[in-house]
Amino acid sequence: MQLLIHLFTKFSRLIGAVVLGGLLATLLFGMMRFAYISATDPSINKTHYLAKQDYLANMPAATENAPNIVVIFFDDLGWGDLSSYGNQLIETPNIDAIAKQGLLMTDFYSASPVCTPSRAALLTGRLPPRTLTDRHVFFPDWSVMGVYRRIMGYTNALPKEEITVAEVLQHAGYRTGMIGKWHLGDHQAHRPNDFGFEYFYGVLFSNDMFPLNLYRNEEIAIEDQRDGGFFSSERDEMHPLPGEGIDQRELTEMYTKEAISFVEASDDEPFFLYLSHSLPHVPHYASTEFANTSRGGTYGDVVEDLDRSTGALIDALDRMGLADNTIVIITSDNGADYNGSPGPLRGRKGDVLEGGQRVPMIVRWPAEIQSGRVTAEMAMNSDLFPTLLNFAGLPLPEDRIIDGRDLTGLLKGEENSPHDFLYYFPVLKSLPAAIRNNEFKLMLEMNDFGRKREHLSRFTGDAEAHDIQNLYPEKAESLKQALDDKQTELKTNKRGWNF
Amino acid sequence: MQLLIHLFTKFSRLIGAVVLGGLLATLLFGMMRFAYISATDPSINKTHYLAKQDYLANMPAATENAPNIVVIFFDDLGWGDLSSYGNQLIETPNIDAIAKQGLLMTDFYSASPVCTPSRAALLTGRLPPRTLTDRHVFFPDWSVMGVYRRIMGYTNALPKEEITVAEVLQHAGYRTGMIGKWHLGDHQAHRPNDFGFEYFYGVLFSNDMFPLNLYRNEEIAIEDQRDGGFFSSERDEMHPLPGEGIDQRELTEMYTKEAISFVEASDDEPFFLYLSHSLPHVPHYASTEFANTSRGGTYGDVVEDLDRSTGALIDALDRMGLADNTIVIITSDNGADYNGSPGPLRGRKGDVLEGGQRVPMIVRWPAEIQSGRVTAEMAMNSDLFPTLLNFAGLPLPEDRIIDGRDLTGLLKGEENSPHDFLYYFPVLKSLPAAIRNNEFKLMLEMNDFGRKREHLSRFTGDAEAHDIQNLYPEKAESLKQALDDKQTELKTNKRGWNF
Repeated sequence: MQLLIHLFTKFSRLIGAVVLGGLLATLLFGMMRFAYISATDPSINKTHYLAKQDYLANMPAATENAPNIVVIFFDDLGWGDLSSYGNQLIETPNIDAIAKQGLLMTDFYSASPVCTPSRAALLTGRLPPRTLTDRHVFFPDWSVMGVYRRIMGYTNALPKEEITVAEVLQHAGYRTGMIGKWHLGDHQAHRPNDFGFEYFYGVLFSNDMFPLNLYRNEEIAIEDQRDGGFFSSERDEMHPLPGEGIDQRELTEMYTKEAISFVEASDDEPFFLYLSHSLPHVPHYASTEFANTSRGGTYGDVVEDLDRSTGALIDALDRMGLADNTIVIITSDNGADYNGSPGPLRGRKGDVLEGGQRVPMIVRWPAEIQSGRVTAEMAMNSDLFPTLLNFAGLPLPEDRIIDGRDLTGLLKGEENSPHDFLYYFPVLKSLPAAIRNNEFKLMLEMNDFGRKREHLSRFTGDAEAHDIQNLYPEKAESLKQALDDKQTELKTNKRGWNF
Repeated sequence: MQLLIHLFTKFSRLIGAVVLGGLLATLLFGMMRFAYISATDPSINKTHYLAKQDYLANMPAATENAPNIVVIFFDDLGWGDLSSYGNQLIETPNIDAIAKQGLLMTDFYSASPVCTPSRAALLTGRLPPRTLTDRHVFFPDWSVMGVYRRIMGYTNALPKEEITVAEVLQHAGYRTGMIGKWHLGDHQAHRPNDFGFEYFYGVLFSNDMFPLNLYRNEEIAIEDQRDGGFFSSERDEMHPLPGEGIDQRELTEMYTKEAISFVEASDDEPFFLYLSHSLPHVPHYASTEFANTSRGGTYGDVVEDLDRSTGALIDALDRMGLADNTIVIITSDNGADYNGSPGPLRGRKGDVLEGGQRVPMIVRWPAEIQSGRVTAEMAMNSDLFPTLLNFAGLPLPEDRIIDGRDLTGLLKGEENSPHDFLYYFPVLKSLPAAIRNNEFKLMLEMNDFGRKREHLSRFTGDAEAHDIQNLYPEKAESLKQALDDKQTELKTNKRGWNF
């Protein structure tokens, strides 16, 4: 008994010392790292920051007849959420009409199944690891997740050496405006006005994050008065009381009015408008006008309000006589969340499955793009950067890899997809876990929990239900090899620097 | 510094004592509990065990013209895995033909989105909590999960006081046989031969569990020679080398031969054959005949082999002149797993969503059921117990609640569903988390991870994509009330004893 007590005491002291020592060491290390990171800006790569300045400083003017550009970017709108994409309950007549006047793409992808990396890809033309937006999304710097990310050394704002399409267009003489959700960092000097947008009206992160301040340029226009800053609150229960902050029921209309004002301020300069709606991301609050009107429930109300907004903006373009030479792009940052529809696709937001990254994509440009066309050629939102630059006759930067490809030929119906492959990026990881070509898709894992289940499917018939590697072993092998090559490339030159 | 060292020592000892003490106490308590459970049989309720004996002892003979009964039960076959249910890659002409000769049900459910509780419901007519098969599935008694379940006090075998349809039919003069997978316990005296099956040929649990011995009645016919008993191995990598145990490639054919022999041994007695296939549960190994023949990959090969098996069994019935008065029932124990198809339904095996519990259901009985009919009336596999007893003219037990309802009128096309409501049971929990009536479904949570997201959907249009509670608040409220009533009833009289 004496011996047992002795052993118990001895072991308990040892275990306790290890546990407590580990805790203290972690805390100390974290504090040191945090202090270091807070004191420096780890996301600046000086060489490429200078190369960027050089590239922008030497930007030529946009070509004479360069189009106006309007990108309408929805948040979490699923592939199946629009009636033009087959939704049976939600009605989106305005967006459907725009699709009929232009091109509807069935096989268009966001570069990520979650928010931040997709937005970075759209603005920079680069895949998530390049911009250090891989793994997950950014959080408010002083939220628990933001502090965690910074302690862990994960980027929490778009690196300053990254080049956005807004910066390029601004330097080429475009008037640039952003209305809506940024989600590329709330860090000082990493906000929309710091990345090429002359005008910014919107929020810095998702509508379920605290504090949800509404900015006009660098000033807070509506301040979030709620308590609860450090942790994000429960979804769907975040609506502030009147006077406490943004009334989310009115957010779509507020953005819409600003977008229309921006268009109405047009003069001889071409403009670039990035209207990045906060909705239909959770929480879902329908506007007074649309509440309880959609057969698709509150989510349907929200989407139908977005459709109304889109129609109003297009009307403004038409009214201003700008329709013909304005390219309107309508897409979403990732697949449907739990209350949206992926249509017949398997999987949702966050998944490597099709429902994670495949999104609606509608392009209208009466001057150059034939109306009423539908294409199943594959493309990705990282393609917009080189495509828009081409439309404006502007050169690409030479110091870095632009992963996106110019879609001009595809959009005009003159060429097939410029891609041999597209890649799928799982959350909480850096490297792509799936690949597709124009016929097959190979997944190394089927969802974001890392289950190792290799799966080959064909884009005909079964919505990724059955693995058919046994029937096409060579197709599977060649896709695996191409994915492996891409992984290797991303591991050896993650940021994609050319020198 | 002296003080810091003192505090560190003091705290580390305290923390260590708590951690180590907690571990020792847990271990000791677990050992005591396990010893107690191993020494007793906690699953016997003596009152109802005696009531069961009494009920069976007084069982009348089946009616003169009682039908033969063949239940073909697939494992993890999804709603969308048969060509008659819309699969575009897998071809199941034999099953499709049987559907055309009888009734195909679009809204038929297993009582659980996982294996064990669904099987218990099919055989006893009772919902999962009644039979103590709620929460999850049974594991081999001496596997890590089996030991865990027993230490925790969870049942790991069908309680002896439960009454199976096989026992009833056996006492009414039926010849009863079970071929295939049991999964209601490998505990002594809780095996198929102990629950009314005169003949048993098959395995006691899933084909991804160890040791996978093949039994003929109480003897092991093929012994699993592999190492690895305590833990279940990786899925899809479990195929034993030749001579090490069951060759899973041949399992469907082995079952089929046995099933046909059982039918061919028919005499004047009616028979009840429960053919409970091990497949298409993982791991998937196609037979030599079917390997690489299906457009649905290896999974398709496995399903097409099952279709071939079904055709061969039906041929045997026809050849024996038994077709007319044999009721053939084809269904599955839960929704599609990762490599199967839920068709257009949302969710899969394990989910509260439709894809979890909605399964194929085909009934052929030329003497009594009109051919070529399809019904969307709702029913559940727990209905088979009272339905089959009614077909044989046998009384229900009076000491307990039978949750299933007699489907005779529905199957004959003379009546609507006997249910006002059906319930959905999440895994790892006891109580239902969703409810449907003939028009709406209300979920308290949308999947098995317990996220509290109330969701109302309608069985028209959107595959549970959008919550429409705002449009039908009274429908939502009345379903919530009905679900709450059921939860209360299951909490207050979980086992459903009438006295």
